[in-house]
Amino acid sequence: MEQIFSYDQLYNFTYNIFKSIGCSYEHATTATKALLAADIRGIDSHGVARLSGYVRLWEAKRINATPDIKVVYETPSTAVVDGDAGLGLVVAPFAMQVAIDKAKLVGTGWVSVKNSNHFGIAGYHAMMALKHDMIGMAMTNASALVAPTFSVERMLGTNPIAVAIPANEQPAFVADFATTTAANGKLEILQRKNADMPLGWVQDKDGNESTDANILKKAGALLPLGSDREHGSHKGYALGSIVDIFSAVLSGASYGPWAPPFPAYVAMPENMPGVGLGHFFGAMRVDAFRPADEFKMHMDNWIQRFRNATPAEGYDRVLIPGDPEREMEAIRMKDGIPLVDSVAADLKLVGEKFGVTF
Amino acid sequence: MEQIFSYDQLYNFTYNIFKSIGCSYEHATTATKALLAADIRGIDSHGVARLSGYVRLWEAKRINATPDIKVVYETPSTAVVDGDAGLGLVVAPFAMQVAIDKAKLVGTGWVSVKNSNHFGIAGYHAMMALKHDMIGMAMTNASALVAPTFSVERMLGTNPIAVAIPANEQPAFVADFATTTAANGKLEILQRKNADMPLGWVQDKDGNESTDANILKKAGALLPLGSDREHGSHKGYALGSIVDIFSAVLSGASYGPWAPPFPAYVAMPENMPGVGLGHFFGAMRVDAFRPADEFKMHMDNWIQRFRNATPAEGYDRVLIPGDPEREMEAIRMKDGIPLVDSVAADLKLVGEKFGVTF
Repeated sequence: MEQIFSYDQLYNFTYNIFKSIGCSYEHATTATKALLAADIRGIDSHGVARLSGYVRLWEAKRINATPDIKVVYETPSTAVVDGDAGLGLVVAPFAMQVAIDKAKLVGTGWVSVKNSNHFGIAGYHAMMALKHDMIGMAMTNASALVAPTFSVERMLGTNPIAVAIPANEQPAFVADFATTTAANGKLEILQRKNADMPLGWVQDKDGNESTDANILKKAGALLPLGSDREHGSHKGYALGSIVDIFSAVLSGASYGPWAPPFPAYVAMPENMPGVGLGHFFGAMRVDAFRPADEFKMHMDNWIQRFRNATPAEGYDRVLIPGDPEREMEAIRMKDGIPLVDSVAADLKLVGEKFGVTF
Repeated sequence: MEQIFSYDQLYNFTYNIFKSIGCSYEHATTATKALLAADIRGIDSHGVARLSGYVRLWEAKRINATPDIKVVYETPSTAVVDGDAGLGLVVAPFAMQVAIDKAKLVGTGWVSVKNSNHFGIAGYHAMMALKHDMIGMAMTNASALVAPTFSVERMLGTNPIAVAIPANEQPAFVADFATTTAANGKLEILQRKNADMPLGWVQDKDGNESTDANILKKAGALLPLGSDREHGSHKGYALGSIVDIFSAVLSGASYGPWAPPFPAYVAMPENMPGVGLGHFFGAMRVDAFRPADEFKMHMDNWIQRFRNATPAEGYDRVLIPGDPEREMEAIRMKDGIPLVDSVAADLKLVGEKFGVTF
């Protein structure tokens, strides 16, 4: 059912595929690191499992392997980046670096991006800020799969938000989550197992409750974080909307139901109001608010206090956002990365296209 | 059960109470407008119903009626404001104005606040940005009532987030929500009615499900947005944590379980790691990203498209964040503001303390 690969094996293969579609050394390296961050951190749906999807988008001429990524609008603390239809895996680190550079000069930097594609996991980009003693933020819009509260129409993507906050001796606080009750990757896992889902993750085409893991193929929709009105789905809907507006309305990307789809076989929406997918990045120097040592000492204290919160019966401990992914990274760097057979077979096929051995 | 008051009646009364505790004309005016914004917008738990609570905090010398509010640390795009233990209703508009002023100069402004108190509804402060064609953000930490995922200990407040985004012909997008499944005000309403709550709002002291609206008095806790792990409560926990860190760890306010309690009879936590409550404000000029007219035209389009999303059976329409509160404001400015008898009686008592007729 599964095979184990080392990080280096997957790195070399992925790098060679990106080179094969025409990426420069620099872009192939950047994209490979960003993509594999998902596999290493245990977010299997967003890593090499998507490599063939990126290749198909390139084949459909929706991804430009040699983009001229640039700042097209700016103020001292803001910028808009045009990704020139490049891989989001390359555009996002460029834009996050612009945010970091601006934060160095004026305290914070905020960058909205248009004309991009899927960027892997948001947390990877947000974490770029950590080594500069900055708080990093990353978000992106995505193809519409989510129905707003009271609606049956898919209007928003899973629109994730990541926030990375540095500490001193404690590992950084890294939150990275879809603004839906369940990420799409969780549905895919249950689809493979042919298992039912919990209530509250999706609705059917008429807005009724459903446990069918295949409901998205039957015009159903993912539900915003909160699941239903009584449990706060209007808050998840608002969060997903904010991500959409910051990522795409601020930048000039395509928003809401017009966001470009990830599967290359799905036709592009008609009358798109902007260009490509949008992202939004932020960097805030912690010493733009108080001395960095002081801030990081208090973050250590915050993290320790929350980690030591009284656990509920049946639980060993309370987690800090980022703990599960960091622990997974330590395990997978040592023991390797398991890929389900279908993903391994898919990668083998991708390799054969370009004469790259998997 | 209820009596109706005009906005002007409540304004005059509230203003006179704030004057009576020693606020200047300017501060009493600012505080009254901020407080009554809650009543007008239908968030009854955060308006005049809390006036006696503020007075009791002043009596307990936890609120300073004549604060020297100032910027104590800054960069071109950031500041820390020390609220000098003032009313949050006064400190917050000051700090939001600093964020707006900085945004005028460098595109965005970000202000973290320490040594403050409860600031009313977050949305009111975020909306200050709208008339400047800016996106406004406001958040605050609050006394600990919320248990992190897997915990039975109250570690976070309801920690709301507000984001206000200007449009052109359409009314602004205004999201304003607690990062819990249900706001505390909703519990209070059910307590008064002696009614049960839906599952998923709270847990008992051992972490079990509960529908008891009085569970917080029995060492129970509110649940983060998402309710349980399976429905994404770790995301609500992360959101509440981010609000706590931005509001209090960045500024030097007291964070997590050490946030000062709102009821004056509850003792202050021991070994507080910072001073008072914390808030966080942001202002982003939309023309720091693209021409303001262009942005607002696309916001109109965004709002119209979402408002016209296909409703689920049994619903007339899909709401845009801010619609219910704006519609309530129109009704209440015309027909008056209903107060339940217990709130009216409480205000009468407060008035008698100072010889102010209610």
